[in-house]
Amino acid sequence: MDYPATINDLSRLCIHTQTTRPWDLRQCIENYAGSGIHRISVWRHLLENTDPKGIRRILKDHAMEVVSLVRGGFFASSHPGQREAAIADNLEAIREAEALGAPVLVVVCGADPGQSPVESVDQIREGIASVLPAASEVGVRLAIEPLHPMYAAGRSAIVTMKQANDLAESLDSDLVGVAVDVFHVWWDVELEREIGRCGAAGKLFAFHLSDWKTEMTDLLNDRGLMGEGCIDLKRIRGWMEQAGFEGSHEVEIFSNRYWKGNQGEFVRKICDAYLKHA
Amino acid sequence: MDYPATINDLSRLCIHTQTTRPWDLRQCIENYAGSGIHRISVWRHLLENTDPKGIRRILKDHAMEVVSLVRGGFFASSHPGQREAAIADNLEAIREAEALGAPVLVVVCGADPGQSPVESVDQIREGIASVLPAASEVGVRLAIEPLHPMYAAGRSAIVTMKQANDLAESLDSDLVGVAVDVFHVWWDVELEREIGRCGAAGKLFAFHLSDWKTEMTDLLNDRGLMGEGCIDLKRIRGWMEQAGFEGSHEVEIFSNRYWKGNQGEFVRKICDAYLKHA
Repeated sequence: MDYPATINDLSRLCIHTQTTRPWDLRQCIENYAGSGIHRISVWRHLLENTDPKGIRRILKDHAMEVVSLVRGGFFASSHPGQREAAIADNLEAIREAEALGAPVLVVVCGADPGQSPVESVDQIREGIASVLPAASEVGVRLAIEPLHPMYAAGRSAIVTMKQANDLAESLDSDLVGVAVDVFHVWWDVELEREIGRCGAAGKLFAFHLSDWKTEMTDLLNDRGLMGEGCIDLKRIRGWMEQAGFEGSHEVEIFSNRYWKGNQGEFVRKICDAYLKHA
Repeated sequence: MDYPATINDLSRLCIHTQTTRPWDLRQCIENYAGSGIHRISVWRHLLENTDPKGIRRILKDHAMEVVSLVRGGFFASSHPGQREAAIADNLEAIREAEALGAPVLVVVCGADPGQSPVESVDQIREGIASVLPAASEVGVRLAIEPLHPMYAAGRSAIVTMKQANDLAESLDSDLVGVAVDVFHVWWDVELEREIGRCGAAGKLFAFHLSDWKTEMTDLLNDRGLMGEGCIDLKRIRGWMEQAGFEGSHEVEIFSNRYWKGNQGEFVRKICDAYLKHA
């Protein structure tokens, strides 16, 4: 097994604001930068009641690059009205991404437990197709994120890299690609092949890091810090690099445990774990 | 969408003893039979300190048919000693199945979080191949059960029907097939196709029922009774029947909530839910 080159600095490290949930956007920017991290993925709720120009100034003052806006999607619903509302919300998210200077909008596709996964996938395709012209107009790319199958009843009917690739390719646009989150896809024996396929199509838009704890206590908010779980992060990073990925390493950890503690200390732990395990 | 014919009686209903965990084996047999259920799948721990002949007499007295013994497997390990121990345990399980008159041993394949899923799959194949001669000698069939990917770190590296079919076919024996448990595979957009493939190969050995609650509180023991969740049971049963499956409908529910309550009442609820939703 060939591992990729060791990571020696934080230049490609990015943190999702939700990782340090107790902080507001300004605290995230200041504290990430203070730890030597200059890439950030912004969760949308932190933009509420903020002025985009002011945020861009703070970002610039801290030499902070926005990697992605998180998250659009949730296109699947058996109710046409909800599908329309989702499209309107995604158009808004695309505007927010442009205002923030985020080149990518992460798309969590959605699912409706009252219909089959196949029906949800069709609605997701239609939803993305509907917002594609607006994304194209401002040059915001859409990264379809396959979620773990344990979220198939509500958050996403797209639960494998293969499905994400099929969907992205079917939409036939350079603006539509895939976000590879190790937490969601590590278990898949087809992962190496599908990452290769995605890279060959020029569709590897994002790479999210965390770890899968073997004794998880919560279905949503008990993700592990890199090294705390069973995911072979270096191997997956190697597959990404072989497939041509040169983007950011985005740490996205939802953890009731870490959110209870000191967030500055958590960021330092993230930097250490990133250099050691990613 | 064509649904299959409605179920009008309990003749194909089978219950896994773990569904009514507070009961010992005699209580399971007596109470299932008392509710008009004459098929049972027996979990191995209930056989400890029992006499197989005595159990077979009780089964016969209640016109109870054993559908399967649950469970063998756990073949994957990075430690050769553990792999050998697993093989020995599976040989014992095959003997138990023969003694009990169970035609099928359910195989939960195992996984080792310290190695890649691909390595685990190779060890699983080797493990099953090792016990196949013993199974063949007594005519016990081995049903590979793909588990939900949320169990990929410990219980099974086989997490899709496609993987189970690939594995079963690679072992090239009429004695090796697949157990389809709706809880584990419902989310998969390839499910219909893979059930069809499995049936065409004569490998649909078992069909397990429960439901996936959209707000699950426990990763292991919060399964729903049929109708409490989002799985389209009738549609999946239709695919099974189209693929030629004529076996039992095995209810397997792990639920801290139901285990706390009156088990006789739970069995009555199972019968009602089965007739209504399965």
